[in-house]
Amino acid sequence: MRGDSVAEETPLVGIIMGSESDLPVMEACTAELEALGVPYELVVASAHRNPDKVRDWSSTAADRGLCVIIAAAGKAAHLGGVVAAHTPLPVLGVPIKTSDLGGLDSLLSMVQMPSGVPVACLAINGAKNAAIFATQILGATMPRYRAAIVDLKADMAR
Amino acid sequence: MRGDSVAEETPLVGIIMGSESDLPVMEACTAELEALGVPYELVVASAHRNPDKVRDWSSTAADRGLCVIIAAAGKAAHLGGVVAAHTPLPVLGVPIKTSDLGGLDSLLSMVQMPSGVPVACLAINGAKNAAIFATQILGATMPRYRAAIVDLKADMAR
Amino acid sequence: MRGDSVAEETPLVGIIMGSESDLPVMEACTAELEALGVPYELVVASAHRNPDKVRDWSSTAADRGLCVIIAAAGKAAHLGGVVAAHTPLPVLGVPIKTSDLGGLDSLLSMVQMPSGVPVACLAINGAKNAAIFATQILGATMPRYRAAIVDLKADMAR
Amino acid sequence: MRGDSVAEETPLVGIIMGSESDLPVMEACTAELEALGVPYELVVASAHRNPDKVRDWSSTAADRGLCVIIAAAGKAAHLGGVVAAHTPLPVLGVPIKTSDLGGLDSLLSMVQMPSGVPVACLAINGAKNAAIFATQILGATMPRYRAAIVDLKADMAR
Amino acid sequence: MRGDSVAEETPLVGIIMGSESDLPVMEACTAELEALGVPYELVVASAHRNPDKVRDWSSTAADRGLCVIIAAAGKAAHLGGVVAAHTPLPVLGVPIKTSDLGGLDSLLSMVQMPSGVPVACLAINGAKNAAIFATQILGATMPRYRAAIVDLKADMAR
Amino acid sequence: MRGDSVAEETPLVGIIMGSESDLPVMEACTAELEALGVPYELVVASAHRNPDKVRDWSSTAADRGLCVIIAAAGKAAHLGGVVAAHTPLPVLGVPIKTSDLGGLDSLLSMVQMPSGVPVACLAINGAKNAAIFATQILGATMPRYRAAIVDLKADMAR
Amino acid sequence: MRGDSVAEETPLVGIIMGSESDLPVMEACTAELEALGVPYELVVASAHRNPDKVRDWSSTAADRGLCVIIAAAGKAAHLGGVVAAHTPLPVLGVPIKTSDLGGLDSLLSMVQMPSGVPVACLAINGAKNAAIFATQILGATMPRYRAAIVDLKADMAR
Amino acid sequence: MRGDSVAEETPLVGIIMGSESDLPVMEACTAELEALGVPYELVVASAHRNPDKVRDWSSTAADRGLCVIIAAAGKAAHLGGVVAAHTPLPVLGVPIKTSDLGGLDSLLSMVQMPSGVPVACLAINGAKNAAIFATQILGATMPRYRAAIVDLKADMAR
Repeated sequence: MRGDSVAEETPLVGIIMGSESDLPVMEACTAELEALGVPYELVVASAHRNPDKVRDWSSTAADRGLCVIIAAAGKAAHLGGVVAAHTPLPVLGVPIKTSDLGGLDSLLSMVQMPSGVPVACLAINGAKNAAIFATQILGATMPRYRAAIVDLKADMAR
Repeated sequence: MRGDSVAEETPLVGIIMGSESDLPVMEACTAELEALGVPYELVVASAHRNPDKVRDWSSTAADRGLCVIIAAAGKAAHLGGVVAAHTPLPVLGVPIKTSDLGGLDSLLSMVQMPSGVPVACLAINGAKNAAIFATQILGATMPRYRAAIVDLKADMAR
Repeated sequence: MRGDSVAEETPLVGIIMGSESDLPVMEACTAELEALGVPYELVVASAHRNPDKVRDWSSTAADRGLCVIIAAAGKAAHLGGVVAAHTPLPVLGVPIKTSDLGGLDSLLSMVQMPSGVPVACLAINGAKNAAIFATQILGATMPRYRAAIVDLKADMAR
Repeated sequence: MRGDSVAEETPLVGIIMGSESDLPVMEACTAELEALGVPYELVVASAHRNPDKVRDWSSTAADRGLCVIIAAAGKAAHLGGVVAAHTPLPVLGVPIKTSDLGGLDSLLSMVQMPSGVPVACLAINGAKNAAIFATQILGATMPRYRAAIVDLKADMAR
Repeated sequence: MRGDSVAEETPLVGIIMGSESDLPVMEACTAELEALGVPYELVVASAHRNPDKVRDWSSTAADRGLCVIIAAAGKAAHLGGVVAAHTPLPVLGVPIKTSDLGGLDSLLSMVQMPSGVPVACLAINGAKNAAIFATQILGATMPRYRAAIVDLKADMAR
Repeated sequence: MRGDSVAEETPLVGIIMGSESDLPVMEACTAELEALGVPYELVVASAHRNPDKVRDWSSTAADRGLCVIIAAAGKAAHLGGVVAAHTPLPVLGVPIKTSDLGGLDSLLSMVQMPSGVPVACLAINGAKNAAIFATQILGATMPRYRAAIVDLKADMAR
Repeated sequence: MRGDSVAEETPLVGIIMGSESDLPVMEACTAELEALGVPYELVVASAHRNPDKVRDWSSTAADRGLCVIIAAAGKAAHLGGVVAAHTPLPVLGVPIKTSDLGGLDSLLSMVQMPSGVPVACLAINGAKNAAIFATQILGATMPRYRAAIVDLKADMAR
Repeated sequence: MRGDSVAEETPLVGIIMGSESDLPVMEACTAELEALGVPYELVVASAHRNPDKVRDWSSTAADRGLCVIIAAAGKAAHLGGVVAAHTPLPVLGVPIKTSDLGGLDSLLSMVQMPSGVPVACLAINGAKNAAIFATQILGATMPRYRAAIVDLKADMAR
């Protein structure tokens, strides 16, 4: 049931990105969440420049009703790890492509998390897939979102 | 509530690995799932040598009651992608360290999934973190597993 | 005998690619096959979005009379491996250049196949060479194609 | 029909390696060829230290009845390319693992062949897979070897 | 004036590391600080498992009289960045060698800090050099430590 | 107190770069030093083409009153190491992005300094962060520059 | 004595490149040789497409009076090694930048030569430096070319 | 004429290495020079810890009668570049294997020299090949050493 309005609903997915420059990449994420009918909220906050804002947003995320977090950042991409340190929610990472190392730096900074505090990582600039995976997480137990994924896969196979 | 017996319960997490040689690494995953009280099932099947077994296991996973899949593989690690092609469930990837390229090959083969069919990737040999993340996915909507993660994080902080 | 019409003949080479965006690269492959007088068929199907289509196409390839398969894909390039899992035919891989990691991800995802199910890999974007190698495979036992390669090498040396 | 004696037959596969130190890796190749019933010959010759020997061996390979060549080398692994320059036969490359760069040097030196003269590359130390792929090439047109591959795949699936 | 006792003095350098497993590497740091007569304090705290401890330690570091911070961590090495987010003091990073990627992951995670919040990075496992650099920072304005570095360089030249 | 005139003051930071082509990148460094009120001097000299000029400039830097040195260079970026060999001052490295390897060559050439003579490295093209870090070094003991960093961090958090 | 006419003299340096597409890069080499007064000859020949031409040119190089060879090639850059196999002269390699891997493939293919047959490698696209190094080789025993290098270094230092 | 005594002769090749820990690798270099009958001298001096010693040794090398210099160093391997800055002689680089990055750092630090001051680089740990190449440089104009190389190549071909 792609394309539902989600404006009135409580957000289930929280998107956080380290810089406004990440927004063009992450529009593929918000567009897909909208297509899949998943309500979300979005914030721009740097783990390094706004650490308190990130901590407050992360540590209250579960109580605000969010179920999944998507963190996007580039270079030494610590944002996912910092968010994960402050929430029991699953945190997905979107490593942003960089102009010098192509995003290998962002990818390794996100995916190589030490034992105990995982961030599960999508492809470099994998914004759309982050939306799909977040919906799959919701769909693990919520039939509405399971159905949205089943529909999406049927669409793709056609 | 770490340490619960999970033997009697319907599995919620399915673990699949490409080779028996991945088992020593993945024992950290099963140990952590047990510690977190998450029932799981485990299968060894190669996407390349047993494609039909993988497809059957994957395409029936949701109907069997699984909520999350963890796929571990090394080298050209296609297993996660092949499983994800056949299920609406979220698929986590554990890239296995390799003796020549250190696991960079496994990592890139898993994480760089094309648009539409995500695999969310943990660190190289990140078997324990895969268990934690799978539990976080369950905890997104099931209070018992949310609580297990909250306890785990409190334990780590001590 | 480069430049022969091949339209009327049964295809001997099957080309499969993961996305229509791979077509511009792969035109160098079809052009070279035509120049070498090798009849081919071409299909676009993603291992992840159309797994059943890929499986059906692969598992019937030998019976349809194909002798060699060329699989082109980018990023986590599983297509070659998935095809190879379903056919006894030799499968050549063409790793497609990517905008972030230059195609190193595609290359490692294709070439590092585990024991038992090989994919033999050409260079990144090596579409023309895939055509030549497919013809060399035919020429291993079929004099007409051996001769086409001998002519090609003589042309190049001039 | 794995395990046939091949001692009396004309070799169909030629194996060449750059150094005697590559022999332990390549034993997995000869063992698999024997298991698949494929007659082969083997020579040790360096493209740099014995260029005339390599050229003579390569340029007469087709006339001697060989159908496929497997070249194994490490570091700046030119052997495959040098052989391919002197024969119309398909040349498979096995990049040997190196102690400093893990074999990435061998792999890139083999796989990134320029337009016109392909070498199709297996995984780093992929000696067994080279044997299987060589047999697949033979099987492209020779039923006996097609059958050997079909049997091998059935064995693996069990 | 290498070898001075520093036990009674207020620490000027704070060393923080993400895990006790980093201690063997970092002993080269503490040994060199002692040799150079620089008083220091040392704490083990993970940015991901103990975020509040790291924040408290970092945000009070300047007021406690520390002048320089050395942060050591491996894999997705966020510790330096997290500390730097909470202190105006200069933060030096020591990327710890990893068993899979050799420490390239740790290095990129530390050095590629985004604009505004630098971490200045030493070599992989560069624990001794971190001690020397911290002393050079002190020596930028404090003659005693400038002299210690001048002596050290004279010693090395002999 | 960003934006102070610094023209009349004795330089505290010395900037050296290997080539005039590095100037566009390093303007972000001088701009930030000016914003932070830090007096600096700037010289262009190659460690390889003008070794005596580099040695003279480096070995007199401390006596001229400089407290910190920032060295920017690309490719085999030896400049930082050569300067560090001739001064007791702390030397910061800015690896310049390269057109072929993205700056990985510059980064490794700067950061992997051997034991005894550190260069502390910022991100590839991290010119602005070098200015901030140099100011943090001054601020380690000089309140005026500590205050400038505190203000900068407050500005960023807004 | 930069800028001398060299047209009438016997070539001392032989330049060989794998493809006409390398010519724009290598013009920096010929321009520098002319500036340094070094007579040279230039040929375009691929180690893979024209192996006999390369062998003939290489194996007669010493007898024709050449003292040094410069080989430029990209991707799986075997040209330097193939030339070195056929001549006792020193062979310098210029790895050409590639559009996918930046030239890392060319560099490793050239520099990682096995024991016994060296190719000494300049930087990626280091065409001008190859000219200087070739002149340094001549200058090792010929005063005229030693003087040309001394002059060049004096020019650069100014 | 391998194996000649060289004890009484004026050194023609100067070997410099950054650390005594490089000696075991470089013994393959001195052994080969002795086998080829080339007189040499050897010094251990770090470009960073003993810059004046390196400069003095380098700037007098030509006047002392040396014709070629071999510089071996690891990690941020500046030694070759620093030597080359002070001598008109050709400088060969031997990048030493490192325990974390395998020697890729040493290689890039040596080979990527900027325009004007080349260092021609051998393989990682290519100590023996450095000896052969140095002899080839001597042999460019001195028949005795040309003959030694011709003999060596004949030996290898046998």
